Amino acid sequence: MTSSTANERDWLIQVLTRDIPLGAAMAIEISRLDERGIALRLPLQPNINDKGTAFGGAMASAMILAGWSLPRLLLKRADLKAELVIGRCELRFLLPVSTDFEVSCDWPPAADCASFIEAVQARGRARLRVTPRCEAGGELVASLDGRYAALVNHP
Amino acid sequence: MTSSTANERDWLIQVLTRDIPLGAAMAIEISRLDERGIALRLPLQPNINDKGTAFGGAMASAMILAGWSLPRLLLKRADLKAELVIGRCELRFLLPVSTDFEVSCDWPPAADCASFIEAVQARGRARLRVTPRCEAGGELVASLDGRYAALVNHP
Repeated sequence: MTSSTANERDWLIQVLTRDIPLGAAMAIEISRLDERGIALRLPLQPNINDKGTAFGGAMASAMILAGWSLPRLLLKRADLKAELVIGRCELRFLLPVSTDFEVSCDWPPAADCASFIEAVQARGRARLRVTPRCEAGGELVASLDGRYAALVNHP
Repeated sequence: MTSSTANERDWLIQVLTRDIPLGAAMAIEISRLDERGIALRLPLQPNINDKGTAFGGAMASAMILAGWSLPRLLLKRADLKAELVIGRCELRFLLPVSTDFEVSCDWPPAADCASFIEAVQARGRARLRVTPRCEAGGELVASLDGRYAALVNHP
């Protein structure tokens, strides 16, 4: 890990768990942040449901956060002050989860990341599609296909 | 409110906040349960994000729970022991929310509710589509279009 990535990881976990109290309630940890993407680790217990398996809302929240983290880091690296929000997404829940689980998201293609930043710089707004997934015990258990919108803050 | 509905309301809030710890972290309350459907009330503070508005994952979780509650009550009323899980859904986030918010879901058409229970009784499995929504300050701020699947527990 480069020191730059370590700094980003420290900054991001504060956003995910201090600025977003539900992230703390979910006991989110960043297990990986590298050139491939990001992975978040979540224990089952705070995220459990009435059936003793992972609550769909917890998996959805963790995927929404993993997907948000990547364009958020792109904006930070480009020193752009912009709001970044999820617009619409499709969620699929494939299997029940009775263990701790991991949510990960790969960086979109480099050309898409570059276009996203260029559009924010040129027009003050842009969208980026990301596809986080949730895995447990080596199996894909849920996925999200979402679009995030960045909008420059006008003072 | 009939005493039957009051009993259901007491039972449901236990499921939503004791059996699902994240529901307690979100400080969910049932503000309405009647012949029209269900409404959940959520304070902004525990559900806030880094921008000082409602976290998309919290709105998603609350809509997932509101949508789940109705088929869950149908199964309970029919005395059917079945697991009920969300399968897939589409989420739309329309506006930022800077106040407490409410999530509600109307009962699906009576014929769909009847078919759902008949299918669970006849084949041990069924699906029901529900469309919860999230409102704040009198405006629609997010919506979910989801399918829930019931599967009878085989002993």
